[in-house]
Amino acid sequence: MNTLDTQKTQDSLQGSLQQVLALLHRHRLVENLVHKQDMPKHTLVESLVHKQNLRALQKKLDQLHTADVAYILESLPLEDRLVVWELVKAERDGDILLEVSDAVRESLIEVMDTHELVAAAEQLDADELADLAPDLPQQVVYEVMDGLDSKEREQLQSALSYTEDQVGSLMDFELVKIRADVTLEVVLRYLRRFEELPDHTDKIFVVDEDNRVQGVLPLKTLLVSDPDALVEVVMARDVVVFHPEDDSGDAAQAFERYDLITAPVVNADNQLIGRLTVDEMVDVIREESDSEVLSMAGLKEEEDLFASVWDSVKNRWAWLAINLVTAFVASRVIGVFEGAIEQLVALAALMPIVAGIGGNSGNQTTTMIVRALALGQLQTSSAMRLWRKELGVSMVNGLVWGGIIGLIASLLYGSASLGLVMTAAMTLNLMLAATIGVMIPMLMVRAGRDPAMGSSVMITACTDSGGFFIFLGLATLFLL
Amino acid sequence: MNTLDTQKTQDSLQGSLQQVLALLHRHRLVENLVHKQDMPKHTLVESLVHKQNLRALQKKLDQLHTADVAYILESLPLEDRLVVWELVKAERDGDILLEVSDAVRESLIEVMDTHELVAAAEQLDADELADLAPDLPQQVVYEVMDGLDSKEREQLQSALSYTEDQVGSLMDFELVKIRADVTLEVVLRYLRRFEELPDHTDKIFVVDEDNRVQGVLPLKTLLVSDPDALVEVVMARDVVVFHPEDDSGDAAQAFERYDLITAPVVNADNQLIGRLTVDEMVDVIREESDSEVLSMAGLKEEEDLFASVWDSVKNRWAWLAINLVTAFVASRVIGVFEGAIEQLVALAALMPIVAGIGGNSGNQTTTMIVRALALGQLQTSSAMRLWRKELGVSMVNGLVWGGIIGLIASLLYGSASLGLVMTAAMTLNLMLAATIGVMIPMLMVRAGRDPAMGSSVMITACTDSGGFFIFLGLATLFLL
Repeated sequence: MNTLDTQKTQDSLQGSLQQVLALLHRHRLVENLVHKQDMPKHTLVESLVHKQNLRALQKKLDQLHTADVAYILESLPLEDRLVVWELVKAERDGDILLEVSDAVRESLIEVMDTHELVAAAEQLDADELADLAPDLPQQVVYEVMDGLDSKEREQLQSALSYTEDQVGSLMDFELVKIRADVTLEVVLRYLRRFEELPDHTDKIFVVDEDNRVQGVLPLKTLLVSDPDALVEVVMARDVVVFHPEDDSGDAAQAFERYDLITAPVVNADNQLIGRLTVDEMVDVIREESDSEVLSMAGLKEEEDLFASVWDSVKNRWAWLAINLVTAFVASRVIGVFEGAIEQLVALAALMPIVAGIGGNSGNQTTTMIVRALALGQLQTSSAMRLWRKELGVSMVNGLVWGGIIGLIASLLYGSASLGLVMTAAMTLNLMLAATIGVMIPMLMVRAGRDPAMGSSVMITACTDSGGFFIFLGLATLFLL
Repeated sequence: MNTLDTQKTQDSLQGSLQQVLALLHRHRLVENLVHKQDMPKHTLVESLVHKQNLRALQKKLDQLHTADVAYILESLPLEDRLVVWELVKAERDGDILLEVSDAVRESLIEVMDTHELVAAAEQLDADELADLAPDLPQQVVYEVMDGLDSKEREQLQSALSYTEDQVGSLMDFELVKIRADVTLEVVLRYLRRFEELPDHTDKIFVVDEDNRVQGVLPLKTLLVSDPDALVEVVMARDVVVFHPEDDSGDAAQAFERYDLITAPVVNADNQLIGRLTVDEMVDVIREESDSEVLSMAGLKEEEDLFASVWDSVKNRWAWLAINLVTAFVASRVIGVFEGAIEQLVALAALMPIVAGIGGNSGNQTTTMIVRALALGQLQTSSAMRLWRKELGVSMVNGLVWGGIIGLIASLLYGSASLGLVMTAAMTLNLMLAATIGVMIPMLMVRAGRDPAMGSSVMITACTDSGGFFIFLGLATLFLL
């Protein structure tokens, strides 16, 4: 028996990667030898060793699952990645390009010529081709389209007409459909005529003569029911269906909520045009949370770990620039109070504490609210109630932590009034943070924008400038 | 026909929530009337209206899917939530408790007595009970255990013996298994004897006489193959199996990688003891990314949006405290240079820019690396290569952005040397950020810890203190 358990899977995946690395290493050593010593008599031997290594590597790669080859390509620096990519059997190119991350895909497509790309793309189904098309040169897409039959071309064009975050771009066209007025026995016989059923098939779609969805026949029902029963008697009529214009994030949430494996996609007339599968939805969930994490850290998109310095700079510059502008504004706020700082230099040392705690606390508030909004659990009508609560939290934190820091500051600088100003400023800045932290995501949603994007930067901007202003302002009023 | 499309699902879910809110609102109005006017003759009428509203609400709730009731409970403030919870049919209590978030579950369990809890828990399967058990009072768990038969008790104890992040705590025990030496016809007849098949069944497990996994028979194979064929001929022998001790995150990644719907869980002797289903794995993926987002924002755990001020303070205090300590250290670094600031007060205004850009850039680096580590794509041996690249990125950014800010600073304060110091300090702090940003997650992994947890705080601490030190230090050396 050939069981493949995760422990083994994880080990063998890491093991495979190590083997690939070792073979690549040997390959490089030989290559260097060839380059360094230009003695002709050695060349033959070395090129043999060279070929042997590559052949061993190729054999290893042929044994691996497509997803695992994709993983290895993602884990390799560019030069090694391209050596491995050369060795992958051409007929797997298409599937592997679908599996790798966007950044790695770009690096692989760059080194393929039109002919290779067309060959790779031709192996794919219309819906897979649609996923790949945006990354392919126009020329390749045209050539592949020419080779499609009219039905496939229509499917491809339909898939391409939807944006990445619409259900239409994620559906596939592998439909098994039956009529309601036949017996299960007939269905069983009909299914037996298939070479194989589409991946993930857990239900068969029941349609009428106009291809309109009537219900679904889950395989589990088909298998436990009397073969003489009619489909219309045993089928489920309560079907969760999707439209191609639906938001893919909403669809993924529906898959999660109702524990779906596959679901029909219908047009406005309720006619079956495609289906969604859980594996695509899992990818949506993964991507959504990824982009949340990435945008919070100020990265435009997933970055190839081994990208060039220049590519990385391009990916990261936008948020750094925004950060610099807001930092500059905060700096000008301090500039206004330079007179106060000259008189009492302790202010310069204490002001970052006030600003920092405000940013931290405001980000906590916003994270909570952005997540509740994303899950649809928060009505804008609850904003007031939430704001009052967050103000309460910030007052408690301000009095407790602000009190402690105020006490330390007053002992350190021997001035009770400085300590009091510190406590007051921290409390006020925390309250500002709570207000901004509730307000910004709510306003973003009202304006129809993604509440996560950039909210962290905006909050930090407000709590920095606000914190410096409150602290230095209070100090000017009460200490000088 | 009764199709339930997402558009309708989303609308009807929001609509249901609105209806519930409207009914609750009316209910409150009547209640207030009763309390305010203590006129006995009105009481009867009002209590009738009161009852009518609640009955309408109850009817509405009865029509909703369990997952949708859970969603509504999560969206309501505490008092309304408890009114709705009272109205939910007792036989659905168990399933709904499983669906709601941890924080909301706690608030619901708090208001239930032992008797109600036992009744709710008794409706659940052993694996579901195991999920709920940690939140239930000991007394309830004991009472429920007494009511179980020995097989169920064994399953419950087995599930409870694994930690939350192990496969053993996520598996269920709804197994359909067959022998390899029978024909598909026999299998089809055997399946027809079931009332219904377990949810998500996409394959049947093939075991030998000692319950050891031999292979799996996918339903799609069963349905397209000749009924006279033997199971052992058509079954798949290449099975991804899991062990109860496996990490659930790894299992979820394997589900994603190999597009699994269900998979067998086996013990060390390869004996079948349970199964994993994709819906549990989707929850794992969702929870992992949630906890990444939450911990980056300094929240200990998912918070009930309508939690009390006190609960929120408890959830958030830890990271605020850490943040305060690091801010205090940075403040002391500035304190050392108070003399320099007194001589050149512009330093106080410029120093937050140097610190801020370092923190932002360092967080970008770390986010990249933490994510690559989590996906297993980064070997610690690549650390040097990555560090060199990140240094390159930070030098480009430092010279470009540092140059611009340096130019502005020198114009603003009429001092070219101040501008040069600013540029140099920004470049150096960005390089420090790159170094720390690569080092911290790598060291965390070497120490066997979660690289995401707290790395953002540590980096900000280093770039704040480091930034202040570098800038004020350079200024002291070259400007004073």
